[in-house]
Amino acid sequence: MISDKMKSLTKNNSVIRAMFEEGKAMAKKYGAENVFDFSIGNPNVPAPFEVVDAIADVVNENDPLYIHGYMSNTGYESTRTAIAEKLNADFGTNFGVNNIIMSVGAAGGINVVLKTILNPGDEVLVIRPYFVDYRNYVENYGGVIVEVESDPKTFMPNLEHLAKQITAKTKAIIINTPNNPTGAIYSAETLDAMGEVLSKKEKEFGTSIYMVSDEPYRDLAYDGVEVPYVTLHYHNAIVVYSYSKSLSLPGERIGYIVVPSEIDDYEDAFVAMGIATRILGFINAPSLMQLVIEQCLDCKTDISYYDNNRKTLYNGLTELGFECVKPDGAFYLFMKAPIDDDKEFCNIAKKYNLLLVPSSSFAWPGYVRIAYCVSHEKIVNSMPRFAELAKEFGLEKK
Amino acid sequence: MISDKMKSLTKNNSVIRAMFEEGKAMAKKYGAENVFDFSIGNPNVPAPFEVVDAIADVVNENDPLYIHGYMSNTGYESTRTAIAEKLNADFGTNFGVNNIIMSVGAAGGINVVLKTILNPGDEVLVIRPYFVDYRNYVENYGGVIVEVESDPKTFMPNLEHLAKQITAKTKAIIINTPNNPTGAIYSAETLDAMGEVLSKKEKEFGTSIYMVSDEPYRDLAYDGVEVPYVTLHYHNAIVVYSYSKSLSLPGERIGYIVVPSEIDDYEDAFVAMGIATRILGFINAPSLMQLVIEQCLDCKTDISYYDNNRKTLYNGLTELGFECVKPDGAFYLFMKAPIDDDKEFCNIAKKYNLLLVPSSSFAWPGYVRIAYCVSHEKIVNSMPRFAELAKEFGLEKK
Repeated sequence: MISDKMKSLTKNNSVIRAMFEEGKAMAKKYGAENVFDFSIGNPNVPAPFEVVDAIADVVNENDPLYIHGYMSNTGYESTRTAIAEKLNADFGTNFGVNNIIMSVGAAGGINVVLKTILNPGDEVLVIRPYFVDYRNYVENYGGVIVEVESDPKTFMPNLEHLAKQITAKTKAIIINTPNNPTGAIYSAETLDAMGEVLSKKEKEFGTSIYMVSDEPYRDLAYDGVEVPYVTLHYHNAIVVYSYSKSLSLPGERIGYIVVPSEIDDYEDAFVAMGIATRILGFINAPSLMQLVIEQCLDCKTDISYYDNNRKTLYNGLTELGFECVKPDGAFYLFMKAPIDDDKEFCNIAKKYNLLLVPSSSFAWPGYVRIAYCVSHEKIVNSMPRFAELAKEFGLEKK
Repeated sequence: MISDKMKSLTKNNSVIRAMFEEGKAMAKKYGAENVFDFSIGNPNVPAPFEVVDAIADVVNENDPLYIHGYMSNTGYESTRTAIAEKLNADFGTNFGVNNIIMSVGAAGGINVVLKTILNPGDEVLVIRPYFVDYRNYVENYGGVIVEVESDPKTFMPNLEHLAKQITAKTKAIIINTPNNPTGAIYSAETLDAMGEVLSKKEKEFGTSIYMVSDEPYRDLAYDGVEVPYVTLHYHNAIVVYSYSKSLSLPGERIGYIVVPSEIDDYEDAFVAMGIATRILGFINAPSLMQLVIEQCLDCKTDISYYDNNRKTLYNGLTELGFECVKPDGAFYLFMKAPIDDDKEFCNIAKKYNLLLVPSSSFAWPGYVRIAYCVSHEKIVNSMPRFAELAKEFGLEKK
């Protein structure tokens, strides 16, 4: 008696989430130390001590009615102002309190944005490979996913194909840089070039095409690679940020939406996003965490930890003969499966207690995603298992 | 360029939320002590000290990776088990971990349930007067609201009209007891009688009709009036609970869904609700608060505080000549407007710095809703203003 849509989703439940559950079951069976669960982006670096301190500070120094009470659906004004000022200091933007809406993580924020802009039948572009739930988010509001190709070596968007996929019904493009699952980061030039294509098509069709930038990995970039701020490169950009990865708070569901005053229909869009936050059932981002974040805007997670994992994993796997994309950001390694069928490869990997996510979950077959936000020890200890896996496929050590 | 649906909602934004913003502006202008904002259900009783202690305990005694990390989309197993056991102890039910899904408050929970069960065009019954956002929640998933009449004296559902409104497309009925805005509580007999009507229609049409019981006010009942547990009175009942009012945590967005094993299609429904939690962008209920709640299941808010407010307000207003419904539960007083146009009456009340919600927001014209979850002082100090308002309408003191 459940809906047809949900019936089909229960049959094809998220591979990643199913693996998360499977990993927990395997850990019970074999012992946690013998299971190598690379399936989910659950950070292994603890929240910075400033976050723990801020929780105590906020609770001890404020009226519980204030900390745990309702505020505007868009969030505490003090928190939104502080975030705007932080962005302005970091990127030379010009945001104020009415350009920021606190959200229930990035997933909540994207849903609020899509609810606000999509009429049924509107098209939303995504660049392959892409996070599987973008499709569900878009379809929640009757939108239609349209895929854009990327360069299979660099994973940069194919601009010709982008132009070709835009129609009069295109309402938005979702980008994700640093990227899940590839770790690729779009340069300022790439964003400018994309912006040009979009602007040209906006004029051609007389439409607005919003660029929705999903940025949970913004602060995870390695080797000094810059992550440009998209609102500086496109006039209709909306940013959705989350503290899940940058402060290791994925369970707390805290993030924000940046709605620049320059976007088309800004005033309606801002009001509508507040309403969408309410009627989708979020009501507001969790209140205590908003106030905690406000005290921790200058905090950073220990990125050297992930960088160390990245190097060990990338070097270890390439030495074993696996072909890998070297990630510039995020905490995922995209590795080519030695056979075409990535799901079959993941099943075989499971024999060695290695839990990898098949890339067909990201609409890009033939690869696996390895989340290296685990303990360094886990990566080191997994290497003999990966070596056995490489041997099974006859890979040659380099 | 925003969606047509959201465009129309921005034009007719929630009266309650708009008033919340207006109240804040008026407080700045006239001084908080001179504004009598009865517009929103923001509790004035602070969270119990046990909650504050539990936050410190959870943070101090656990690994931050555990407290702030991802767990299953349905929530921590320990929290869900503890809630199931608490319900079993309180109501003699037989729930286990797989009957409980942690939710982002009751609003989040209702959205998850409706996403799970509704096909576009499915009908959802609501009993007038009803919380305005039920309509938005239902329409989020393409559902159609069908209104059922209640007795204008007792606000109990009109069972004949209920039977008449049920069609082959009826997928659910949303009930809310103790009720917002009337404070009415449905007795066991009322629930049994409703259940009979629904069961008979299920057989007639060969359908399942879920009773979705929205219970943020369950623990706010006065004069010893019992709030029966609906799953004991109807075989297809789903409960959505929130700690917003019972523990004064409305900003934290923490609640749960009870999915009894007895409901039709239980297994699919339970899995689908986990998936809906994910794809609607909630991902999971805020993690720290789940663990805090787990330690506070026996806590109660100070209901005598609200009861005192209730008596002062009810007695004061009826003495002034206003006609009021005496509430058995929740923290709202439903008062008849002395003129037909409740919006006009609220506008006039504003002259006296009295912020009341017009009942036409609840699809029941001619009344106002007065939220008495404010300080007692606020109620006492508002009485002279209400007296002036009564005078303006020529009401006679009793």
